[in-house]
Amino acid sequence: MTRPRNDTFLRALMRQPTDYTPLWLMRQAGRYLPEYRETRARAGNFMGLCTSPAFATEVTLQPLARYELDAAILFSDILTVPDAMGLGLYFAEGEGPKFERPLREEWAIRDLEAPDPAGKLRYVMDAVAEIRRALDNSVPLIGFSGSPYTLACYMIEGGASDDFRRIKTMLYERPDLLHHVLDVNARAVTAYLNAQIESGAQAVMIFDTWGGSLSHAAYREFSLAYMQQIVAGLTREKDGERVPVIVFTKGGGLWLEAIADIGCDALGLDWTVDIGQARERVGSRVALQGNLDPSVLFATPDVVAREATRVLERFGSGPGHVFNLGHGISQFTPPENVTTLVETVHSVSRKMRAGA
Amino acid sequence: MTRPRNDTFLRALMRQPTDYTPLWLMRQAGRYLPEYRETRARAGNFMGLCTSPAFATEVTLQPLARYELDAAILFSDILTVPDAMGLGLYFAEGEGPKFERPLREEWAIRDLEAPDPAGKLRYVMDAVAEIRRALDNSVPLIGFSGSPYTLACYMIEGGASDDFRRIKTMLYERPDLLHHVLDVNARAVTAYLNAQIESGAQAVMIFDTWGGSLSHAAYREFSLAYMQQIVAGLTREKDGERVPVIVFTKGGGLWLEAIADIGCDALGLDWTVDIGQARERVGSRVALQGNLDPSVLFATPDVVAREATRVLERFGSGPGHVFNLGHGISQFTPPENVTTLVETVHSVSRKMRAGA
Repeated sequence: MTRPRNDTFLRALMRQPTDYTPLWLMRQAGRYLPEYRETRARAGNFMGLCTSPAFATEVTLQPLARYELDAAILFSDILTVPDAMGLGLYFAEGEGPKFERPLREEWAIRDLEAPDPAGKLRYVMDAVAEIRRALDNSVPLIGFSGSPYTLACYMIEGGASDDFRRIKTMLYERPDLLHHVLDVNARAVTAYLNAQIESGAQAVMIFDTWGGSLSHAAYREFSLAYMQQIVAGLTREKDGERVPVIVFTKGGGLWLEAIADIGCDALGLDWTVDIGQARERVGSRVALQGNLDPSVLFATPDVVAREATRVLERFGSGPGHVFNLGHGISQFTPPENVTTLVETVHSVSRKMRAGA
Repeated sequence: MTRPRNDTFLRALMRQPTDYTPLWLMRQAGRYLPEYRETRARAGNFMGLCTSPAFATEVTLQPLARYELDAAILFSDILTVPDAMGLGLYFAEGEGPKFERPLREEWAIRDLEAPDPAGKLRYVMDAVAEIRRALDNSVPLIGFSGSPYTLACYMIEGGASDDFRRIKTMLYERPDLLHHVLDVNARAVTAYLNAQIESGAQAVMIFDTWGGSLSHAAYREFSLAYMQQIVAGLTREKDGERVPVIVFTKGGGLWLEAIADIGCDALGLDWTVDIGQARERVGSRVALQGNLDPSVLFATPDVVAREATRVLERFGSGPGHVFNLGHGISQFTPPENVTTLVETVHSVSRKMRAGA
């Protein structure tokens, strides 16, 4: 019996009727929560949290203890996969993730191999299994990975970038090399997500954080095609239950029709898209997840309630909406605003379904 | 006689037939040029370049001496207007623009006034007039300003920001205050652009660099509405010649139809939009300016030629295209690639018109 007692999230992803609109928040286990900061301090640093299944379980469950969220998401980092490839992930305080050995030489690219998820990524699978045990079938657990292109951005730039000069130069000058990196990444991510599913993830999400920095044509060739390859290779049914796949390209609002066509169950939307128009554009092909501007959570509770209601109303009635932010929750969010958000989404959407 | 000998750029903005597709490059007078770096060193710093009409003229003309560009653009900074409002613009090395007195208190917002362009902004008008004399009617001169919302981002954040937390909080919590700032900015920008036109600018462009960080609904209310107010207040004819207006919202590809409706002559497009689809969406209402990914210029000349040709072909035949990058040219661009770009755009577009 693997179906969780609260399966609203899974039902919404499959566009089945639900009593209310389920919600979870990208980066819901994070720095805006004092209990997270306390655990992180005990763990020593961020990677200490990720690599310890006990710590990862603890922080994954923290937001669920505070708020009536409809899904848990594995606490991990999107760069675990390139780290397992040997690039040497580290976090410089205040600078975000970096790699000791960024991928720049042709020989290093030719040597790149997809890591065995049962090897150096074992700690992630152990965390998934331990979180599932701790959740005790209350709500579903979401597994995730970065997209092949997004991973490649960090791998080639060596960290965050504001112009993506190195990877873009490779894209235009040596597309063959970049395609090789992306193919390895796509195989690695497929195996990684399938291992998460095998370990207990009940839905998976692909985060394409940087696909939106590409041109219209390059997005299709260098990001979308590899996400399609992954979706085609994923385990879509486990223990008789569908394992839905959510694909989210930040800044990809222009390309929703194309993303909806790669075989995923749901699209993540950032806040620049009107969710009502998005629904018209993709029709009944996929569910939609989003898309409140995370900055709304900096305002007062009445504003949070008003803006959340506006998103629900723009989506309208009918199935297929998972409420979320349009991007990860900010560390500067007052935790009490999340309480307002959760209560508003649940109560307003219940009333909408009742036709009130 | 004010019409320049090469009026291809102006004709394209008005969707009139031209012998070839004109081009200029955002930030064409900039750090990628060794002669610019030399002049900047003589001027002491960036603001020294902007505030001296002689230096501003010198750097404005530098790219035209090297390349057969079809327009010049006033060398200045988008933050001259809030600087003239008394916010104290300065440039911290490697950190971008900052304000000594960011706009955060209600009393300061209530005290904000649109500066007289003939006062503290006189140096900009002097530069426009001196550049016009130096151009000697060879090619048109473009004047420009930041959009009200983009200026407000810097004014309220106090500098560049990656989350726009302060302005977004104001937007959601105190929209009345932000509307006041934006109204002052819109009046200031209208007067500033009209003074540039009076001093000799033959076309003007509004740079909405940060409008794309807004939600669908907030973009209309807090950025587009104020650009519409400006466009309605601009001098559109000078000495019997139309003065075209270009509006560019970076990341605004989802909203092109709405932007095309505010009365401007042309839309700037970033590189995420397919220019052929953009043309279908806006029809014959406006000309289009763009939209090569600036990163293409990091690659080899053959790639530059191939990708530039692709943009021309995606636009297709017919009038109304001004070639440009989708964002400012990078300081890391090899200057010889710009030679290839200019030659390709001119020669390929001539052949396309000849039906070859």
